Amino acid sequence: MTEKVLLAHGDGGSLTHQLVREVFRAAFNDPALEAEEDAALLDAPSKHVRMCTDTFVIHPLEFPGGDIGKLAVTGTVNDLAVTGAEPRYLSVGFVLEEGLELSLLKRIVQSMAETASEAGVRIVAGDTKVVEKGRCDGIYINTCGIGFQEDVERLHVTSICPGDRVIINGGVAEHAVAVLAMRAGIHSSTGLLSDCQALNKIIRGLLHRFQTIRFMRDPTRGGIATTLKEIAELAKVNITIAEEQIPIKPEVQGALEILGMEPYYMANEGKVIIIVSPEEAEEVVTFLRDAQGQRMACEIGYVTEGTGNVLLQTPYGGTRNLKRMAGTPLPRIC
Amino acid sequence: MTEKVLLAHGDGGSLTHQLVREVFRAAFNDPALEAEEDAALLDAPSKHVRMCTDTFVIHPLEFPGGDIGKLAVTGTVNDLAVTGAEPRYLSVGFVLEEGLELSLLKRIVQSMAETASEAGVRIVAGDTKVVEKGRCDGIYINTCGIGFQEDVERLHVTSICPGDRVIINGGVAEHAVAVLAMRAGIHSSTGLLSDCQALNKIIRGLLHRFQTIRFMRDPTRGGIATTLKEIAELAKVNITIAEEQIPIKPEVQGALEILGMEPYYMANEGKVIIIVSPEEAEEVVTFLRDAQGQRMACEIGYVTEGTGNVLLQTPYGGTRNLKRMAGTPLPRIC
Repeated sequence: MTEKVLLAHGDGGSLTHQLVREVFRAAFNDPALEAEEDAALLDAPSKHVRMCTDTFVIHPLEFPGGDIGKLAVTGTVNDLAVTGAEPRYLSVGFVLEEGLELSLLKRIVQSMAETASEAGVRIVAGDTKVVEKGRCDGIYINTCGIGFQEDVERLHVTSICPGDRVIINGGVAEHAVAVLAMRAGIHSSTGLLSDCQALNKIIRGLLHRFQTIRFMRDPTRGGIATTLKEIAELAKVNITIAEEQIPIKPEVQGALEILGMEPYYMANEGKVIIIVSPEEAEEVVTFLRDAQGQRMACEIGYVTEGTGNVLLQTPYGGTRNLKRMAGTPLPRIC
Repeated sequence: MTEKVLLAHGDGGSLTHQLVREVFRAAFNDPALEAEEDAALLDAPSKHVRMCTDTFVIHPLEFPGGDIGKLAVTGTVNDLAVTGAEPRYLSVGFVLEEGLELSLLKRIVQSMAETASEAGVRIVAGDTKVVEKGRCDGIYINTCGIGFQEDVERLHVTSICPGDRVIINGGVAEHAVAVLAMRAGIHSSTGLLSDCQALNKIIRGLLHRFQTIRFMRDPTRGGIATTLKEIAELAKVNITIAEEQIPIKPEVQGALEILGMEPYYMANEGKVIIIVSPEEAEEVVTFLRDAQGQRMACEIGYVTEGTGNVLLQTPYGGTRNLKRMAGTPLPRIC
């Protein structure tokens, strides 16, 4: 095989066939891919299926704590998991740039395979296109995920009510800051790592153990501010969070101060916001802190009657009304 | 709203929200999208689900007979349909280039909505990313499709046996030639049209009416030669086709002669190759010809014992062994 991706790798002919066999099928190693059918045949173990899609265009392709492949798997797994579904199958669509090093592609594909295996999901369908040099930036990856759900009555945004507590499973802004530091060329001295991780096993544990979790959402693009705003608007409530309670690693805080940026709008890739009754809130935090890698989990706020506002209480007694992110985009953060 | 796509349309904040609401949700108009959940909640009406994915990077974005949006819907619908599944739900992932005209995006989204509606499939999940100018070529679209299937014992490639007939539902090479003519700037004088169409309703009719259809596949990238080669190898048979029997519109033939290209490797986007018993072959052709727009359907060959060869009989009594496409890629044809 050549060492670089050629346009002919995308033409559907013999080089495409070779790439699929030697790179994708070799790493993903799934009987559904081996069957070489136009569409994978899969079991549907429930009457309710969940479907979501996400395209990843992150730059750079590899960053501290992850790479575009790991991100493409965890992002879609997490979107399914926060709805209460059990993620089961992923499809993967690649757009590759002519001239891409095959060794880089193989590392990313291997990372996808390992991440999927750890999360317990199967990669069952795929597609590859190649575009001319300069028409893509290395690799773009779409993942579509399907999962199944027995109890679809849980986790409705409308079940959120005043008094409920807002919990997050760890420090904010880690993904965006790690990527920005990498772009700035200062990552090796900072120890900053993306929080990129699959949350489906932790979420499964939470839903098994606790009966009054109202709703969950992963605060990715737009950060916790945008996600809380979406929740508050959909639930027709206000959400108040306390600046001092929001967990943030010191090195992330330091980097944000240097960058002159706030943590509330910075993307996370391994975080979940959990809205739960006041009765179970403390136990949820304890449960999370006992789980691997979630020691910074904590309660960050609460729900009140309202009309879709997110209020940030500052340490000096002030209150800011947080809006959705607008005007300061961080392009290609996921 | 601005007239062009901005990087901020992809940041997950207020402009993303506006784009999704005013362009995507307005056109696709599906309750699953209105619910604004991380993953769409859908019915799974069968124990067997089919899943497939395809990314579309065609250039130009609009071409005679279709556009990238129509193609993205029909391509995935057809991949599901040829396996015998009933296509039901699509997800759509967009990569947009900064500076793209919003009016063009809206036309393409509208085309997707109309094509999905005609095919009877729902667009239930979506994602949008924006990359800097020069990092994409206008629009790339991924569609992932899921469908459901009751009888999964039908349409196995291993049920193909010597004596079976090979049928196609119309003229070959129409999609690739229309796109190439558009690129060459000669399309307006030729009347060439892509064959881009959803085949699920015709296929449903065929499967309902005929009991001995062994296998189907849509000959897209790589053309009928590559698809027949894949079938012959998977089924461990030889397939013989007769050059004189392969349907081809005169204007397509003329264009191919000018281009110096053969029809066998040219992409189709509205064709299906059907392998059927000799007993039902003639009726299948009649059934197809009676269906809208399939008047050129015909039998093009037959299956013999063998080891995966595709043999093309020429009008002069010779035989060529057709391989997969190799070495003459037609980039970005779909």
